[in-house]
Amino acid sequence: MTFSPADIAAIQTPAVLIDLDIAIANIGRFQRYADAHGLRVRPHVKTHKLPEIVNLQIAAGAVGITCQKVSEAEAMVAADSAVTDVLITYNIVGAEKLERLKALAKKVKLSVVADSAAIVKGLSDAFRNEVQPLTVLVECDTGANRCGVLTPEAAEALAVLIHTLPGVVFGGLMTYPPAGGEAAVEAFMMTAKTRIEALGIAVPVITSGGTPSMMHAADAPVTTEYRPGTYVYNDRSLVSRGACGWEDCALRVLTTVVSVPAANRAIVDAGSKILTSDLLGLTGYGHVRGRDDIVIDQLSEEHGRLISSGPIGLSVGDKLQIVPNHACVVTNMVDAVYVAGNGLASVESWPVVARGKIV
Amino acid sequence: MTFSPADIAAIQTPAVLIDLDIAIANIGRFQRYADAHGLRVRPHVKTHKLPEIVNLQIAAGAVGITCQKVSEAEAMVAADSAVTDVLITYNIVGAEKLERLKALAKKVKLSVVADSAAIVKGLSDAFRNEVQPLTVLVECDTGANRCGVLTPEAAEALAVLIHTLPGVVFGGLMTYPPAGGEAAVEAFMMTAKTRIEALGIAVPVITSGGTPSMMHAADAPVTTEYRPGTYVYNDRSLVSRGACGWEDCALRVLTTVVSVPAANRAIVDAGSKILTSDLLGLTGYGHVRGRDDIVIDQLSEEHGRLISSGPIGLSVGDKLQIVPNHACVVTNMVDAVYVAGNGLASVESWPVVARGKIV
Repeated sequence: MTFSPADIAAIQTPAVLIDLDIAIANIGRFQRYADAHGLRVRPHVKTHKLPEIVNLQIAAGAVGITCQKVSEAEAMVAADSAVTDVLITYNIVGAEKLERLKALAKKVKLSVVADSAAIVKGLSDAFRNEVQPLTVLVECDTGANRCGVLTPEAAEALAVLIHTLPGVVFGGLMTYPPAGGEAAVEAFMMTAKTRIEALGIAVPVITSGGTPSMMHAADAPVTTEYRPGTYVYNDRSLVSRGACGWEDCALRVLTTVVSVPAANRAIVDAGSKILTSDLLGLTGYGHVRGRDDIVIDQLSEEHGRLISSGPIGLSVGDKLQIVPNHACVVTNMVDAVYVAGNGLASVESWPVVARGKIV
Repeated sequence: MTFSPADIAAIQTPAVLIDLDIAIANIGRFQRYADAHGLRVRPHVKTHKLPEIVNLQIAAGAVGITCQKVSEAEAMVAADSAVTDVLITYNIVGAEKLERLKALAKKVKLSVVADSAAIVKGLSDAFRNEVQPLTVLVECDTGANRCGVLTPEAAEALAVLIHTLPGVVFGGLMTYPPAGGEAAVEAFMMTAKTRIEALGIAVPVITSGGTPSMMHAADAPVTTEYRPGTYVYNDRSLVSRGACGWEDCALRVLTTVVSVPAANRAIVDAGSKILTSDLLGLTGYGHVRGRDDIVIDQLSEEHGRLISSGPIGLSVGDKLQIVPNHACVVTNMVDAVYVAGNGLASVESWPVVARGKIV
């Protein structure tokens, strides 16, 4: 048992527990798949926001990290991590952020994305007087309907613009695909790559991501790099998709029963301020380990309501472990996580250095 | 305009803006209602988590504050605030938290709640050797189906237990009612009060709360004290209930358009890491000020997707202000908020001192 009963008894709740042995196994599982298929791995740090886990990912073979915001990348680079290569998969807008991006580019190998001429021009203007140009990938919408150019032709046009303007170099193509979107990724990216290469412009990287269908990443063989995030911890949404089992969930919320007002109802001290309201299409706000009969049917900020199909059989003071619907957002709610395993002599509290880094 | 165009241009996004002039008007509106009906006001700090706003609430006439967790109360008391009287409306469980509670009780007039003999006994054991006993109110379930004893008879039994045990004194009755639950509050509380008083035990406080129906608080005349939280800022959920208008919403999320991938779609840099996934029964994740045609139909952690019924007419770099569904949870996502109004010479950044205080 990674966390002993004495460990659990000593931790004030609610709290986030990380089982490093499970996390390391999760990291290894995907790294082996990627290695077998010639895919580079560039994990998204949003799930853990911890330099210590970045180091485990890099030790396992990751080529660098993915961040979503400039401040998140700054935090990971400033921390004592082995990071030397960062991709920010976000359109960077605004003079202050572009200044921060320039400072960051002096510290690590940095690349960003763009999905419009406005973004590319902003990056070019910011970097045109820098010694080192900024690597810019074109973000492509392969079905997620979020950011990204809508067609391979638009990707080509933007690649040409990047290739033409000073201060920036074209680094390839990036997408955040819908789950199961490998065929769409392959079709879009192959067309865009062919068109861009036909102009004599190299497409060194085609990067895709997303844990839900990561074990099918090689079904889009045009992909050179993959960016899973949640895979390191897993969560209830991934169990519900069949991507893993409960025993593969490295992150749990430790909580205490504070009230048992009725025979089938208990209230715990974990509410939306730690579990969050993310449903990800599920019913209920998490899975109570070992209690398939319980539904967490309602959260307020500091209360979670547990309803059982029968007598709930809990007492005030009982501690429970909840696998949240979505691990990444839970990480962002706490200043520190409790960590055990990987040969640590005792439970440690690790500050979540990139928590709340939204700008 | 409380935030000038130059102020808005200078703030990196996403960010939380607080219009103090609106907040002060909101505080005054309910204080006047409460004063007119002989109700004491004990605001819940969860909405703002700021000592500066506590001071405004106390200056307006609040008798003290409500907190939900020990760490939240500690943060508010440690900060430079005028707080001398704190009610923690939560069952306190566990040796470490009881120790923290004892330390806090030495600094301010403190009361807590309990809804079971187990909680009362824990409090009594912790405080039996203290000079000053702890004031304990009985939490009553008047229809919210969260914590609380289920019947006036159970409230009476717990009041008797508190009255009997050492280290604790009975302080009255507390409820978090369902919206529109004034009749249920009156019936439950009047019966419990009558029964307890018939035993010769005084019921000095009957405290209720909740912003949605606060302007009907006096419809439960047994109530002596009211604990609104969201009223200081208001939010989309309260506008949708008709409790206020958009012009009464003091908290907004400032965000920047980072992509306009299609004619009717734009992506902003505010996602669930600032707006949260709280729906509170609504469709969509917030209201874009001045743009009734836009629905925020999807959030990921760092992206908000805006869909318009017609051409969206936005450009990369445009800044928008979003009224979130739920103000309290947004406050908890950021380390600091940007504040203007109330005669401040310029925009200030105030640390959210009680952010993330979950234990």
